[in-house]
Amino acid sequence: MWLYDPDGRGYLDFYNNVPSLGHCHPEVNAAMAEQAGRISANTRYLEPKLIDYAERLVDTFPSGLDRVVFTCTGSESNDLALRIARFASGNEGVIVSTHAYHGTSAATAAVSPNLGDAVKLSPFVRMVSIPGPAGVPDGQAADFFEAQIRSAIADLNRRGIGVAALLLDSIFSSDGVWVDPAGFIASGVAAVRDAGGLVIADEVQPGFGRTGEHMWGFERHGIVPDLVTLGKPMGNGFPIGAVVGRKAPMEQFGTTSRYSNTFAGNTIGIATADAVLSILQRDQIPRRALSMSQHLRAGLEKIEQQTSTIRAIRNAGLFFGIDIGHESAPATARRTMALDLVNAMRDDGVLVSTTGANEDSLKVRPPLVCQAEHADLFLASFERALSKVAGYAS
Amino acid sequence: MWLYDPDGRGYLDFYNNVPSLGHCHPEVNAAMAEQAGRISANTRYLEPKLIDYAERLVDTFPSGLDRVVFTCTGSESNDLALRIARFASGNEGVIVSTHAYHGTSAATAAVSPNLGDAVKLSPFVRMVSIPGPAGVPDGQAADFFEAQIRSAIADLNRRGIGVAALLLDSIFSSDGVWVDPAGFIASGVAAVRDAGGLVIADEVQPGFGRTGEHMWGFERHGIVPDLVTLGKPMGNGFPIGAVVGRKAPMEQFGTTSRYSNTFAGNTIGIATADAVLSILQRDQIPRRALSMSQHLRAGLEKIEQQTSTIRAIRNAGLFFGIDIGHESAPATARRTMALDLVNAMRDDGVLVSTTGANEDSLKVRPPLVCQAEHADLFLASFERALSKVAGYAS
Repeated sequence: MWLYDPDGRGYLDFYNNVPSLGHCHPEVNAAMAEQAGRISANTRYLEPKLIDYAERLVDTFPSGLDRVVFTCTGSESNDLALRIARFASGNEGVIVSTHAYHGTSAATAAVSPNLGDAVKLSPFVRMVSIPGPAGVPDGQAADFFEAQIRSAIADLNRRGIGVAALLLDSIFSSDGVWVDPAGFIASGVAAVRDAGGLVIADEVQPGFGRTGEHMWGFERHGIVPDLVTLGKPMGNGFPIGAVVGRKAPMEQFGTTSRYSNTFAGNTIGIATADAVLSILQRDQIPRRALSMSQHLRAGLEKIEQQTSTIRAIRNAGLFFGIDIGHESAPATARRTMALDLVNAMRDDGVLVSTTGANEDSLKVRPPLVCQAEHADLFLASFERALSKVAGYAS
Repeated sequence: MWLYDPDGRGYLDFYNNVPSLGHCHPEVNAAMAEQAGRISANTRYLEPKLIDYAERLVDTFPSGLDRVVFTCTGSESNDLALRIARFASGNEGVIVSTHAYHGTSAATAAVSPNLGDAVKLSPFVRMVSIPGPAGVPDGQAADFFEAQIRSAIADLNRRGIGVAALLLDSIFSSDGVWVDPAGFIASGVAAVRDAGGLVIADEVQPGFGRTGEHMWGFERHGIVPDLVTLGKPMGNGFPIGAVVGRKAPMEQFGTTSRYSNTFAGNTIGIATADAVLSILQRDQIPRRALSMSQHLRAGLEKIEQQTSTIRAIRNAGLFFGIDIGHESAPATARRTMALDLVNAMRDDGVLVSTTGANEDSLKVRPPLVCQAEHADLFLASFERALSKVAGYAS
């Protein structure tokens, strides 16, 4: 849970969602080193562990999602999923959320409005608002979202572009962590399918137990996507990702379009990811993350009751968004306050960051091995930062 | 130099160009393991080794190429280089060779005619023939290539697309390994610059000393590109790549377009690549590869003199293309014979593959640590395979 500066000072890591099992996990590192000493090869060479891991990985998904292609990064996963969806649907259009971020490649950056004005969007992408930031009450959330989707579909069809995919991070990480109400995306998802598009769940951030209740974030919404993209915590830091999906589109693409990725599915990455999955399952990391997220949420709610500086607390498991600044404060002031809190906590030895359209939400996502002692250190530091920045008194 | 099957049988590896320093190099693996036990973090955390390595890497390039962005794969490198070239030039057009392959992402696959008809090409890509496969004599090679380039530029300009980049693998690996005459690309390169395009050298295959005479393949042609893309052997198997380039386009892109790649430049990849570069330089691997390539070429020429089955031998350092089948034989027969040779050698315990428009050239590219004993084993196996498949008698 700790990072150290050159002077040996420790920083409690409440920000990094790649090393879900903690920094420098000895078993993961041993698996990596052992495989590096045996063979580092690509998927042109058959290796039993590759098949074993692929089967164990798809076993964590709902039935029907039983094909996998390995990649090296979450960006490569989303880029490949878009290629598959466009190939299988015969359409070009992609629907994403207003502040979505899906990767650094040309094709994924072009469907990532979060990157800002300098990065041109694709003429084939449409953005939909999500109910939370629009202030829509829970009871109308599904209808609101579905109406946005239907309007995007109509526009894409009217221009002859058609819908290839709805591409969603189910906890809307870069929109500010909007998780409720569970299930609000389901009717919009169905509308995309009706229009001939595929549904891609971007699990690079919510996946591998981050949300606690489930292994995969989309499960929270009761939907089953056509394609699922994986990345960040899959190798606890080793560059590995994957696309998991239904047989039909995966085979349609795979049997006609040669896809050979030199480093993807390489033996060291597979051995590392295999160790990660084994530990996640053996140590029941998602269940422990859920319990820790409840402890953390209770502590945050106690703080919230004593200040008007916190507008809202949202979380799914150990991914928290904490809206900073009184609702009457101007956007700039809220953004400044959130950044001041991040810096005050860093000075205090605790690492977090910001997210959201206005960057005024704290983004809190500790490694999933976080214990009560770490949560309590974080809460105490947050209170100190609030005192310093926002005149908070407990 | 050896791979082993489950029964412990050894296969001499004359095919893999990722583990340039050989499989399971103990010093490289030690560097990887040591760093994994210290910290695995991304470029948001300043790490002295990241800066040191970046400076040592750009020192291997001609002056002026002094900026670097790290990636995880060669595909990511080419994808990013295209983004930078399009951003800096304001144009969209890309010129590649007839059978080029530049990657698996949507944007790089769309400029990779080698992937075949199922993978749609970009409407903004133009293909140019290279002189060798077109049978153009050396004395006319530069003019032939330049004329192709000028015609592509004219067509792109006529359609208002403009030229963003000429993207070339300087040894034309997937066109069949066409390396001569040295310098033939220079006047075409100048024409692209005159038209406002950038020149991207795809060094994923020729780079890091593969060609023996130079660290980078483009040096053989006496040109200096604007952007250079790296991959495969950079980490001897660890997923790491980079774009190296001139300050102007790199800063123009970098200061306006947020590019954050979670795994790129991560501390383990950097430590591994740092060990690879140190060993390449300390052990003078490129110089040794050049000397070994001369030994190999002499042996191949001796075989060539005794058979009409070999049409030509081409190489730059330890990357060989050996054209198989008598020139009067039909294309199908030549392709079948090349594949039969590959399989006969595999049965004999030696690994090679095929390349070229007709897949009738043997693609031979051993790890750069290849010794005379390995070259001699390869030559003996090649003779046995020729006896079996093509009635060769030494």
